[in-house]
Amino acid sequence: MIELQPVAIVRSPRTDRRDDDWGAVESTIELDERFAPQALDGIEAFSHLEIVFLLHAINESEVETTARHPRNNPEWPKVGIFAQRGARRPNRIGVSRCELVRREGRTLVVRGLDANDGSPVLDIKPYMREFGPRGDVRQPPWADEVMSRYY
Amino acid sequence: MIELQPVAIVRSPRTDRRDDDWGAVESTIELDERFAPQALDGIEAFSHLEIVFLLHAINESEVETTARHPRNNPEWPKVGIFAQRGARRPNRIGVSRCELVRREGRTLVVRGLDANDGSPVLDIKPYMREFGPRGDVRQPPWADEVMSRYY
Repeated sequence: MIELQPVAIVRSPRTDRRDDDWGAVESTIELDERFAPQALDGIEAFSHLEIVFLLHAINESEVETTARHPRNNPEWPKVGIFAQRGARRPNRIGVSRCELVRREGRTLVVRGLDANDGSPVLDIKPYMREFGPRGDVRQPPWADEVMSRYY
Repeated sequence: MIELQPVAIVRSPRTDRRDDDWGAVESTIELDERFAPQALDGIEAFSHLEIVFLLHAINESEVETTARHPRNNPEWPKVGIFAQRGARRPNRIGVSRCELVRREGRTLVVRGLDANDGSPVLDIKPYMREFGPRGDVRQPPWADEVMSRYY
């Protein structure tokens, strides 16, 4: 077992389990007080962050370990839990990119972070262009459909 | 504290702590046997994966909690540990994109994964185009330099 301690917490107007429309959501990431504000120094030079967080609204009993229809939609193929980004996944880890609006001390104001209020943050990373996928991205049609209203 | 259990392990020819030249490295991700192979069904439809792993070669005593020069290079500015992607970070979590070469049962053959041999994998996600950063990416000059030989 690996023990991790949250480094920050998300404060967001989003408290429900709605899946879509994250693009305009403005939220904050509050760095834990055990860290000096210096742990964020220089982050303003980046336009985007990559946030690793716990999907804490999911109960462990809800975790899927084999395959399911994304969003339980029978029109989409049944795919493995590691071949989709559903929240009911082992370890319940979310990873996503968001825009950094501004920093105020230990607080990061961000736009488009798909994490509900109270989500424990496991890591904050600056997004660097070169860390994007190398080469053309290919994905199945169901993924295009799932994502069409996400942001 | 949050307890996580690795879902897979990385097998890689890279065993040292060298920072660069990851682009051509071919490695495998071996799904833990507690999962049925079905947990990966459909993953072949994606060209790229997003892997969350533990930077297990870092000792907890090496973790930086405030600010440091990236790669200890005094020519680059001293920036907070959450404003850089150095491995010596709280929770020691790595996140990166790699190319999926092929799948064989519980094994994923990947290219360009910057994880050393033996790295515990915390999550495997398919990369979807829409999860990339929205809007233009801005980053400081030191980040361009750090990344120039990374892949």
